[in-house]
Amino acid sequence: MVKNTQVIFKKVPTSYLPVAGEHITTQDTEFDLDTQLSNGQFIIKQLVLSVDSYMRGRMRDPSVKSYNSAFEIGKPLLCGTMSSVIKSNNPQFKVGDLVYSSGGKFEEYSLVDDDTADDYKIRNEPKETGLPPSYYLGLLGMPGLTAYVGLIKFGQPKKDETLYVSAAASCVGQLAGQLGKTFGMNVIGSAGSDEKVEFLKEFGFDNAFNYKTNDINTKLEEQAPKGIDVYYDNVGGKTLEAAINHLNHYSRIVGCGMISQYADHPETPANLIELIKRRVQFTGFVVTDHSDMEDEFRKDVTKWFLEGKLNYKESLADGIEKTPQALIDVLQGKNLGKQVVKVTDL
Amino acid sequence: MVKNTQVIFKKVPTSYLPVAGEHITTQDTEFDLDTQLSNGQFIIKQLVLSVDSYMRGRMRDPSVKSYNSAFEIGKPLLCGTMSSVIKSNNPQFKVGDLVYSSGGKFEEYSLVDDDTADDYKIRNEPKETGLPPSYYLGLLGMPGLTAYVGLIKFGQPKKDETLYVSAAASCVGQLAGQLGKTFGMNVIGSAGSDEKVEFLKEFGFDNAFNYKTNDINTKLEEQAPKGIDVYYDNVGGKTLEAAINHLNHYSRIVGCGMISQYADHPETPANLIELIKRRVQFTGFVVTDHSDMEDEFRKDVTKWFLEGKLNYKESLADGIEKTPQALIDVLQGKNLGKQVVKVTDL
Ligand SMILES: NC(=O)c1ccc[n+]([C@@H]2O[C@H](COP(=O)([O-])OP(=O)(O)OC[C@H]3O[C@@H](n4cnc5c(N)ncnc54)[C@H](OP(=O)(O)O)[C@@H]3O)[C@@H](O)[C@H]2O)c1
Ligand SMILES: NC(=O)c1ccc[n+]([C@@H]2O[C@H](COP(=O)([O-])OP(=O)(O)OC[C@H]3O[C@@H](n4cnc5c(N)ncnc54)[C@H](OP(=O)(O)O)[C@@H]3O)[C@@H](O)[C@H]2O)c1
Repeated sequence: MVKNTQVIFKKVPTSYLPVAGEHITTQDTEFDLDTQLSNGQFIIKQLVLSVDSYMRGRMRDPSVKSYNSAFEIGKPLLCGTMSSVIKSNNPQFKVGDLVYSSGGKFEEYSLVDDDTADDYKIRNEPKETGLPPSYYLGLLGMPGLTAYVGLIKFGQPKKDETLYVSAAASCVGQLAGQLGKTFGMNVIGSAGSDEKVEFLKEFGFDNAFNYKTNDINTKLEEQAPKGIDVYYDNVGGKTLEAAINHLNHYSRIVGCGMISQYADHPETPANLIELIKRRVQFTGFVVTDHSDMEDEFRKDVTKWFLEGKLNYKESLADGIEKTPQALIDVLQGKNLGKQVVKVTDL
Repeated sequence: MVKNTQVIFKKVPTSYLPVAGEHITTQDTEFDLDTQLSNGQFIIKQLVLSVDSYMRGRMRDPSVKSYNSAFEIGKPLLCGTMSSVIKSNNPQFKVGDLVYSSGGKFEEYSLVDDDTADDYKIRNEPKETGLPPSYYLGLLGMPGLTAYVGLIKFGQPKKDETLYVSAAASCVGQLAGQLGKTFGMNVIGSAGSDEKVEFLKEFGFDNAFNYKTNDINTKLEEQAPKGIDVYYDNVGGKTLEAAINHLNHYSRIVGCGMISQYADHPETPANLIELIKRRVQFTGFVVTDHSDMEDEFRKDVTKWFLEGKLNYKESLADGIEKTPQALIDVLQGKNLGKQVVKVTDL
């Protein structure tokens, strides 16, 4: 028997921010590593957990319908995980294989049954590239693919055009902006602290501003004097409204996320008629529809990163017991880049 | 000398609805039909005027910028006209030619100078098709092209899909819905009176409802049980919000108009995040960008109308002095189909 710490959904929060210990908590259980595995079963040890803001949406009463299912009270949280197979009775998963799941359990060890084995994808790339497994939850994982698909497929970037990215210091945002630079765009980003703004400039954004201490319209007027051709929207609400005010004719909005709409009193743009007058195309997308672009994405972005054309920053919390606070941090935008929790080293 | 009645922009209205006599008025002036025409000049007699709601936007203080210019105080209103050339010293415009202008003067007779001759396009089709010149301001004119481009190019209609058209009894709306039927779609329309709803059903809409006496969400739930695949938006605001609530994944919104936004206290949709979750594409467009589709449009729609595959209804006011009231009617949605004013018969 080994100790198996789990991160548990304990209670539905009544306001936006959960409280550690009350709504999310960690609990120590036991795991039997010597258990007899039936056909198709295997055991994994989590290496790193992805802590995403959209997890808040799953911390709800199950009677409330949504595009994703509610977390179960008393059960571990689920989100992206990178894990290592440590015991296996499944010919497709060998001991030592690294596996990714988009809905892995937030616990140190998991027993995977044959009928849920499909939820795990072998992702041995870290062993070849030498890059940390956590990168495969961010830059080279789902958020990276999101930025890649969103900007390239729906943003239709062109050289010398102006790209504006909101929540630009987020995992998706930092890559969307840097990808814009690889297309020769003039890239502007906004983020919620001066530290994040500095970081964006270091990462090659041409301009960046703190939306909390500045008027967004004024800043866009200053930083996008030729208008915006592609708005990569992670925020929605009044940020979207300000962006629309600066859109050029035939511009595109990449509808990636609307973080502002998770607030208790969300605001909504009042100038949508401009989308007609300015002939704007807005495309909402969900990354899971675009797995056909995954190979190309991982090849391109790995190469560009290894060549130094792209940078990457993550916020790493060390130890599974740090997970509740890490999620609360993410929900307050305290993370700079992808928030991950290291459970153990590779 | 002949009497030349003009429709004059007299004063900027302070609320949405102008008052006839106060903000728009008719005045009798004189016109010299025997004037000596210099090179390139010609004289036209207006046959029919197009009265469009967007004219209200031009009845503003010229210091307020917009995508179109403000009307000049003391000068005739400008909008779509069909006219007949009655005297000419311009080799390109022969006596008897019918001409269309998108910004023709609202007066009985106009003298056209060489340098503005380009604003007039020869449109002799009524002489070939036998259809009234007024149709070339509606079904076969700019609004018709709007419906055609909007639905076909941006709506990407497919057989058995569901199309919802708001302001469906408008000139654009009635054609958009009927075009949907030619593609084998299930077509739903909403309009502001029971009379309009009846008319939509006569015109082959599968379902229609009065949005003033019904809850839009309830009606869409009833009439679009399989969800909406294409929303042809003429209204925006809370109608757009209700439509979004019923959109299917990968659906399209044709951003044609947002009449609701001209109200004194416009409302705005609060559920834009659904555009992402439902992978929706919204495309705003302006018809004047799509003159490349004009020939194809006029050929198709003339043919379909003459074959009886399409119906058309217009509201015709008889006599130029009826113009101020006709515009006020349009701004109150009293018109059923394209509002035109007949100045004189062909
Ligand atoms: N469409 C898709 O398939 C898809 C897939 C993945 C992610 N996304 C979207 O991409 C965006 C970025 O995601 P990510 O995972 O890269 O984000 P992330 O790294 O977790 O960063 C989120 C950032 O958003 C800002 N923020 C503002 N208000 C917030 C709030 N109430 N809660 C959380 N964050 C808030 C914070 O930055 P500031 O300090 O700058 O405010 C925060 O650092 C999100 O909109 C997400 O929904 C979309
Ligand atoms: N994108 C483009 O290039 C383009 C070009 C032309 C027209 N359009 C748009 O197409 C739509 C229909 O235009 P149309 O010329 O066909 O319209 P129309 O025949 O003049 O009819 C307009 C209808 O809109 C409704 N309406 C509701 N509130 C109104 C208001 N405050 N003022 C005026 N109408 C109101 C009324 O119907 P109810 O009784 O049903 O409310 C009215 O009958 C408009 O949204 C217009 O902006 C777009």
